[in-house]
Amino acid sequence: MLIVMELGATREMVDKVCREIEKAGLKAHPMPGAIRTAIGVTGNKAQIDADHIEAQLGVKEIIHVTKPYKLVSREFYPEDTVIDVNGIKIGGEALVTMAGPCAVETRKQCMIIGEKVAAAGAQIFRGGAYKPRTSPYSFQGLEEEGLKILAEVREKFGMAIITEAIDTEALKLVSDYADIVQIGARNMQNFSLLKKAGRQPRPVMLKRGMSATLEEFLMAAEYIMSEGNHNVILCERGVRTFADHTRNTLDLSAVPYVKRTSHLPIIVDPSHGTGKAHKVIPLSRAAIASGADGLMIEVHHDPANAFSDGPQSLLPEKFDQLMKEIKAIGAVLGRTSP
Amino acid sequence: MLIVMELGATREMVDKVCREIEKAGLKAHPMPGAIRTAIGVTGNKAQIDADHIEAQLGVKEIIHVTKPYKLVSREFYPEDTVIDVNGIKIGGEALVTMAGPCAVETRKQCMIIGEKVAAAGAQIFRGGAYKPRTSPYSFQGLEEEGLKILAEVREKFGMAIITEAIDTEALKLVSDYADIVQIGARNMQNFSLLKKAGRQPRPVMLKRGMSATLEEFLMAAEYIMSEGNHNVILCERGVRTFADHTRNTLDLSAVPYVKRTSHLPIIVDPSHGTGKAHKVIPLSRAAIASGADGLMIEVHHDPANAFSDGPQSLLPEKFDQLMKEIKAIGAVLGRTSP
Amino acid sequence: MLIVMELGATREMVDKVCREIEKAGLKAHPMPGAIRTAIGVTGNKAQIDADHIEAQLGVKEIIHVTKPYKLVSREFYPEDTVIDVNGIKIGGEALVTMAGPCAVETRKQCMIIGEKVAAAGAQIFRGGAYKPRTSPYSFQGLEEEGLKILAEVREKFGMAIITEAIDTEALKLVSDYADIVQIGARNMQNFSLLKKAGRQPRPVMLKRGMSATLEEFLMAAEYIMSEGNHNVILCERGVRTFADHTRNTLDLSAVPYVKRTSHLPIIVDPSHGTGKAHKVIPLSRAAIASGADGLMIEVHHDPANAFSDGPQSLLPEKFDQLMKEIKAIGAVLGRTSP
Amino acid sequence: MLIVMELGATREMVDKVCREIEKAGLKAHPMPGAIRTAIGVTGNKAQIDADHIEAQLGVKEIIHVTKPYKLVSREFYPEDTVIDVNGIKIGGEALVTMAGPCAVETRKQCMIIGEKVAAAGAQIFRGGAYKPRTSPYSFQGLEEEGLKILAEVREKFGMAIITEAIDTEALKLVSDYADIVQIGARNMQNFSLLKKAGRQPRPVMLKRGMSATLEEFLMAAEYIMSEGNHNVILCERGVRTFADHTRNTLDLSAVPYVKRTSHLPIIVDPSHGTGKAHKVIPLSRAAIASGADGLMIEVHHDPANAFSDGPQSLLPEKFDQLMKEIKAIGAVLGRTSP
Repeated sequence: MLIVMELGATREMVDKVCREIEKAGLKAHPMPGAIRTAIGVTGNKAQIDADHIEAQLGVKEIIHVTKPYKLVSREFYPEDTVIDVNGIKIGGEALVTMAGPCAVETRKQCMIIGEKVAAAGAQIFRGGAYKPRTSPYSFQGLEEEGLKILAEVREKFGMAIITEAIDTEALKLVSDYADIVQIGARNMQNFSLLKKAGRQPRPVMLKRGMSATLEEFLMAAEYIMSEGNHNVILCERGVRTFADHTRNTLDLSAVPYVKRTSHLPIIVDPSHGTGKAHKVIPLSRAAIASGADGLMIEVHHDPANAFSDGPQSLLPEKFDQLMKEIKAIGAVLGRTSP
Repeated sequence: MLIVMELGATREMVDKVCREIEKAGLKAHPMPGAIRTAIGVTGNKAQIDADHIEAQLGVKEIIHVTKPYKLVSREFYPEDTVIDVNGIKIGGEALVTMAGPCAVETRKQCMIIGEKVAAAGAQIFRGGAYKPRTSPYSFQGLEEEGLKILAEVREKFGMAIITEAIDTEALKLVSDYADIVQIGARNMQNFSLLKKAGRQPRPVMLKRGMSATLEEFLMAAEYIMSEGNHNVILCERGVRTFADHTRNTLDLSAVPYVKRTSHLPIIVDPSHGTGKAHKVIPLSRAAIASGADGLMIEVHHDPANAFSDGPQSLLPEKFDQLMKEIKAIGAVLGRTSP
Repeated sequence: MLIVMELGATREMVDKVCREIEKAGLKAHPMPGAIRTAIGVTGNKAQIDADHIEAQLGVKEIIHVTKPYKLVSREFYPEDTVIDVNGIKIGGEALVTMAGPCAVETRKQCMIIGEKVAAAGAQIFRGGAYKPRTSPYSFQGLEEEGLKILAEVREKFGMAIITEAIDTEALKLVSDYADIVQIGARNMQNFSLLKKAGRQPRPVMLKRGMSATLEEFLMAAEYIMSEGNHNVILCERGVRTFADHTRNTLDLSAVPYVKRTSHLPIIVDPSHGTGKAHKVIPLSRAAIASGADGLMIEVHHDPANAFSDGPQSLLPEKFDQLMKEIKAIGAVLGRTSP
Repeated sequence: MLIVMELGATREMVDKVCREIEKAGLKAHPMPGAIRTAIGVTGNKAQIDADHIEAQLGVKEIIHVTKPYKLVSREFYPEDTVIDVNGIKIGGEALVTMAGPCAVETRKQCMIIGEKVAAAGAQIFRGGAYKPRTSPYSFQGLEEEGLKILAEVREKFGMAIITEAIDTEALKLVSDYADIVQIGARNMQNFSLLKKAGRQPRPVMLKRGMSATLEEFLMAAEYIMSEGNHNVILCERGVRTFADHTRNTLDLSAVPYVKRTSHLPIIVDPSHGTGKAHKVIPLSRAAIASGADGLMIEVHHDPANAFSDGPQSLLPEKFDQLMKEIKAIGAVLGRTSP
C-alpha cells in the first residue's frame, strides 16, 4: 500500500498516518518528495483498512500494491489446480468441453442433444433447470424435474453434469443431482450464495459478472474457497461495454491474466459472450488458442423451437466440426483432446 | 416488434415467419423493400418469444419496439406513485432525505449520528446491518443486533428506518424491523430475492445495478411488483464505466428518463456514486436540480474511524449546510422540504 | 512513482532499477516487504520514462503518483483562471451561457435564433459552420459562408461567437472570425490541431473526448497551454458507456473534479450529453447545481426542419424558461447571472 | 427505418409523418397497434434525414434497420477485397504479419529488428516516425528522418513498409515513403484526414477508435472509400472498457462481424490491445483462430531501452516462436503462411 499525502499536508498529519500504520502492526516508510510526501507500507496488508487510512486528515489517495486475495493466488499456490470430476480432469493438459442446450426443456430434447454432443466428444453436459430471466413473465425452468432429466443424461451417455444454482434453495438440489454447480454472472457477487457454495461438496464453476474486474472475479472465487471448497473453475463469458454488435464483449485477455495470477482453471463460454451462433465458432477457436482450459457451448438440434437462446445455439453438426478444429488448435499448444 | 430478414431471404422464409407470428395470436405486416423485407408485428407483445422468431431461417435481426415491462410503466399508470412510510410521502411534492452511516457500528455511533441528521431535517435513517463486502475478510455487519439499534434510533428520533436485505434470510428480519427494505446494486438481478421482496409488506428501495440499462432496472422493479408489492422506490447510485476519477459514474439522466417512463419515485445516492465526500455535495445539489424525489446520503461524525466507506461520508455540519442548499434548489422546481 | 517488483525479483534486479532511477536524477527508496519489494521514487517525475522502467527485468508494475500535467494543475496555479471574451468573463462569479443552433443553416435562421437567445440572456452565440459528421453523405456545413453569418449575428446582437474548428485548415478561418475556437470531442486527441490551437490568439473551448479519462482531458488542455495559449475552457459533454437511454452519459462528477484539480473554467453541454430536448432542461439545471461555470445549449426555433440534431434542440420559449431556473439555482451557489 | 409514435399521437401526427416520408420519395407503411402506431419506411434510406423525422410532433423514437454504409458493405460487394502491396496479398488465403518497433529510434535499431523479423517471416515492417503522445513533453518521433530509415529497411530486407500519418502534413510524406498509410485509433474520426487519405494512392490501414462501435468503424472506412481509395485494411486494436487488467479490451468478435458485414480485410494488433508482452502471444494466436487476415506486432531487441511501449514489445526470439504457432493455427483454418 502506498499513501499519497495532500500537497499541503503538515508534518503532524504525516506522523499521525504513520502512527496509525504502526498501530496496525505494519511498517511505514515516509518518502518526503519535492512536491508532496508519500508513505510506503510494508507487512501483511490484510490487517489494515484502507478506508480508515484514506479518511485521515491530509491523505489524498491510497494506492494498492498487493492484491487482496490469497487462496486464489498463484503466489501462494504456484501449481496449477486440476479438478477431477468423475475422472474428467479440468485444468490439466487435456481440454474439456461442456455442451448442451441453454435450458432443459423436455426429456426427449435432452436425450437427442446429449447423444449428439457425447458423440462429438463433449465430456460434460450442460442445461439449465433454473433460468434467471430478466422478465418475470418468461419461462423460468423445469426445476427439480429438469435436474432429474440431467441425471438421466449422465446415466445414459456417461457425461458429467453441470447446471446453474440460481439461489440458495436451488443450490441444495443442484448439489444433490449435478457434478458441477454453476454460479451465474448475475450472482457473481451474491455473497450469501458464494458462501453456501463454499460449504457444499461439488466443484463450482463461477462465471464472471457482467461488469466485474478480474480482481473482483478472483475475490468472488476467494469467497467460495475461504469456506473450504477449493475446487473452483472460473468462466469468462463476456463483459458489458458500449459495443453493440454482440450481446457482450468476450474478453479473452482474461485467460492469460488468470493463468498468470491464479492457479485455478479457466473455461470460456462464447455462446453467452457473443449471442450469435455464427460468432460462437470463431471465438471458440480463439478461446482455445488463447490458452483456455476448455469451453462451454450451447448446442440445440432445433434452435428455431428452443425455449430460450435459440439464436446463439449451434446445430450438432456445426458443433461436431468445431470439436475437430479445437482439437487441432489445442495440439499446437500441446493440449490433448478426447 | 420489427423483424428484419436477411438479404437473400426467400418468399417462403418470410411466409414462415408470418405464420409463426399469427400462430402466437399477433398480426404480421410484411414490408417488402428495395433491398430486403422487414415484418412489422402488432398486438400484445408479451405473448411471443423474440428468441424463437430470431432463430427462424432467414431472420437477420429482431428490433424491439414496445418495452417489456407493464406494471412499472407510466403508459399503464399515468399518475405518480406516492409511497407513504409512517406519514412520510415519497414521490410527491415534498423532497425526502435518507441519511446515516454506511454501517451500523455501535449503539452510540447511531445515536450521535441519528440526532445530528434528524436535527438537519432527514426524515429517514439509513445504516447497514448486513454489509455486502467484496472481500470475505472484511467486516460483514452486526446483523440482527444492528437492526435493533436502528429500531431504537426510530423510537428516539422519530425517523423511519431503511436498511439493506442482502439475502432471503436477512430479508425476513429486515422486513420485521425496518420501514423500507433496501435491495443493493449487486442484487438488482437476484431474481429470487426480488420475488421475495415482492411478497413482504414493506416498501422496497431498489438500487440500479452497476451495469444495468434502465430497461433492466425497470424490469427488476417489475419483478417485485408482479408479486403484489407495488411500493417500489428506484435509486440511481452510479454505473461502472472506464472513467476512473470516481468510484462509479453517477448517471443523472436516469432521473428524467425514469420520470417520463415510469410512475415510480426515484432517489439518488451520490455517496456511492462518487466515493468521495467533496463530490457528494455538488452532486447532491445536481440530483435535486435534475428532478429526483430525494437523496440517500452517508453521514458520519468521525469518518477517520468509520468501519467502512469513511472517505465518502459527510460530516454532520456539512450535511446540515447541504440540506439548506437542497431546500433552496428544490424550491426553484416547486418542491417542498421539511 | 512507485515500482512494484515481481515476487521472485533478485537483489540484483532491484539494484539495477534503483540505478536507472538515480541515473535519471531521481531518488530511489527501496522498501523490502514480507512478500515483495517496492521502490518509491521521488523528485521531478517528468524526467523519467515509466515505460523504460517497466521494461526492466523483475519489474511487475509501475504505479503513478504525481500527475503528468503541470500548466493545467491547480497545484501550480492555485487561483481560478478567468477568461475575458469581449468583456464577458468565463470562470468567475458570473455564469455564462452559450446558445444557438447545432449548425449554421441560413442567415435568416441565425438571425431568428440569435434574437431569441440574446433576449433570454445568452452572452455567447454558438453554431457550427463546419460539421464533423459520421457519414460522408451528410450535410457538412456552410464553411466560410457560415462564419460570415456568425459575424453578422455578433454585430447585430452583441453576443460573442463560438464555433468549431474541425481541422487545421478550418482553424485559421475560425480564428479570424470567431471569439472562441471550439475543439470537438472527436478531436480531443488530435494533437496537431491542439498544438496549432495553442499558437493562435483566441481562447479555446476543448470538449472532452467520448472515452477520455479526466487525466487525458487535462493533458489535452496541457498540449494547448504548452504552446503558449493559456485561455482554455473545458467542456463536459458526456462519455460513451453501455447505457443506451441517452446518446452519451453526462458525467457531472467531472465538474467538482476539474474544479479541484485545475484552475481552468468548465462548461457543460447537456444537448450532446443527452441527445433529447426533454432531458436537456433537467440536466442543465443539474450542471449549474454541480458547480459548472456555464452551459452550452442548442436552441432552434423550428427543430422539425433543422438540418441536424433537431431532437436535442430546445425551442426558444423553453430556453427562456430554463434561463430563469438557472439564474435561481446559480444564486443558491452564490453565482450571478445577466 | 421504423418510426415509433408516442402513445397519445393523433391521427394527424401520423399522417404528417407519412407525408414527410413520401415527400422524400420513400414509402410509408403505417401499422396501428393495440397500444401505439409504428410506421415502417421502405425505399432507399440514404435520402431521408432521421433527425428531421424524429423532430416531428408525436414521434417517440426512430429505429434504424438498414445500415448507413454502402461501399464497405458485403451486400454491395460480395467478394473479399484482396489488396496487393508490392506483391504481398492482404485479405486473401495467405496470412500477413506486420512487425517492428513501436517507434523508429535509430537507423541501427531498425536494421537489427528488421533483420530479425524478416528472418522470422514478417512481410511488412512497422515503425512510427510520427508518434501521437498523450503528453506534449514525450518523444514525438524522428519524422522525415524516420521515414528515410524505414525506406532503407525496405530496400535491405525486401519488406513493405507501414507507418502512421498523424495529420494531413505527415500524410503527404508518409504517402511518399511508405507502402501502406496507417491511420491511428485517435484519428479514426478525424474526417479531414480520412478524406485526404482517400485521395492519395497508397492502401490505408485504419485502426478502430478506442470507443468506436463497428458501425462507426465501417463508416470511417466509407469516408476513405468515398473519395476513391478502395484499398482499406481494417485493424482491431482493443477498445476502452471498465476492465483495468489490460490497457484496452481486445474485441475479437469484431473479426467475424467485419468478415460477415464487409468485404475488407481485417488485421489484429494485440500489442496495443493488451499492453503487455506476455499477453501478446496468446492473443495473437487467438486473433488468427478467430479468422483475422493477419497481425500487427511490436518487436524490439532491447525493450528495456525502447523509447516507447517497451513493456508490450516482444523479443525477436519470442516473435519467432509465435510465427511458428500462428502458421500451425492458420493451417487449421486453411490459411497459408510464408
